[in-house]
Amino acid sequence: MKLYSYFRSSAAYRVRIALNLKGLPYETVAVHLLRQGGEQLLPEYRRLNPTALVPTLVDGDLVLGQSMAILEYLEETHPQPPLLPPDAAGRARVRAIAQTIACDIHPLDNLRVLKYLKHEMKVSEENKNAWYKHWVEVGLASVEAMLAGHPATGDFCHGDRPGFADLCLVPQVANARRFDCDLSGMPTIVRIEGRCLELDAFRQAAPANQPDAE
Amino acid sequence: MKLYSYFRSSAAYRVRIALNLKGLPYETVAVHLLRQGGEQLLPEYRRLNPTALVPTLVDGDLVLGQSMAILEYLEETHPQPPLLPPDAAGRARVRAIAQTIACDIHPLDNLRVLKYLKHEMKVSEENKNAWYKHWVEVGLASVEAMLAGHPATGDFCHGDRPGFADLCLVPQVANARRFDCDLSGMPTIVRIEGRCLELDAFRQAAPANQPDAE
Repeated sequence: MKLYSYFRSSAAYRVRIALNLKGLPYETVAVHLLRQGGEQLLPEYRRLNPTALVPTLVDGDLVLGQSMAILEYLEETHPQPPLLPPDAAGRARVRAIAQTIACDIHPLDNLRVLKYLKHEMKVSEENKNAWYKHWVEVGLASVEAMLAGHPATGDFCHGDRPGFADLCLVPQVANARRFDCDLSGMPTIVRIEGRCLELDAFRQAAPANQPDAE
Repeated sequence: MKLYSYFRSSAAYRVRIALNLKGLPYETVAVHLLRQGGEQLLPEYRRLNPTALVPTLVDGDLVLGQSMAILEYLEETHPQPPLLPPDAAGRARVRAIAQTIACDIHPLDNLRVLKYLKHEMKVSEENKNAWYKHWVEVGLASVEAMLAGHPATGDFCHGDRPGFADLCLVPQVANARRFDCDLSGMPTIVRIEGRCLELDAFRQAAPANQPDAE
């Protein structure tokens, strides 16, 4: 498999963790989101992935964008070890936590959005940073509320095995730290992040450990 | 089942279509996003759904937010008629189209985001509308590129049965029309929307046909 990835992309980071947890070897193809005005916007990448976003997974004939669709595909085609619980209610809970990050936080703080705020809307650096923090803090506070005190929360977001929710959470928390967001009211998230980062699958997927890291 | 819904919410609209396609009866509980400063922000709703967003599905003991997680749950617990194709590659394609709408368009044009732009960032009405159109047009152009000329595209986004991609597409196109977005370069989307709206399941889920419609 080939993964078109950018070291700092948290959507690519999710998929890297999943590939590692499942022990699937892959080749990284670096797409630099800042070079050449954004390599993801070049025609050859757009032909592969019309959304002009990373990641893209290539598996034989299949060319697939959207990290959450990629995760479901990997789970279906390589079910071991499972990254979703065995029961429908458990799977629903894990997907809801994952989607809270993938839909309610990440899209608002994506690079293309920050660029639009700056260049098209002439938003000040200060207001842009406030925007970033706002959506991270609101979104992670929701995730904390979904996790804290819930009987299904264990060492990880759901029980004692890492899964979709954890591999969305860790990249988002990494971004939160990079932008100095306030995690003080989120002890469950911080605890689970720490537990995840004990695992090689998470550590090796981190931005700093990618071939295109700067 | 109970669905906490707002007639105009396109995320709730997706779930309403899925429930109708599967022939599942449900009770609508209206959550008015504008009344009382937003009924979704009231403590009793937040206890149910900490993200303070609609929809929320209640099925017995399960209380579930996030429309895409709800769709997967309905597909697992009520598999007939299927809203995903039988093959992993097909399912991946459908989920990628659905997520392009659910992650790359809808979160940026959500009510809470438009309110933040207006009240916190003091963005002009003109710039706010330009923002709205920009993300719809960029996102739907990607979806058009994923659909047009692809051998799996049929009467619907994938083959000749409606599924996850269609039930994300129709509410998003309805919003695009409401905000006067340019759909002229999107003949495949417009054709599929028309085909969907021939079906009662789609028509009955439309905002105007909800008990809380204004």
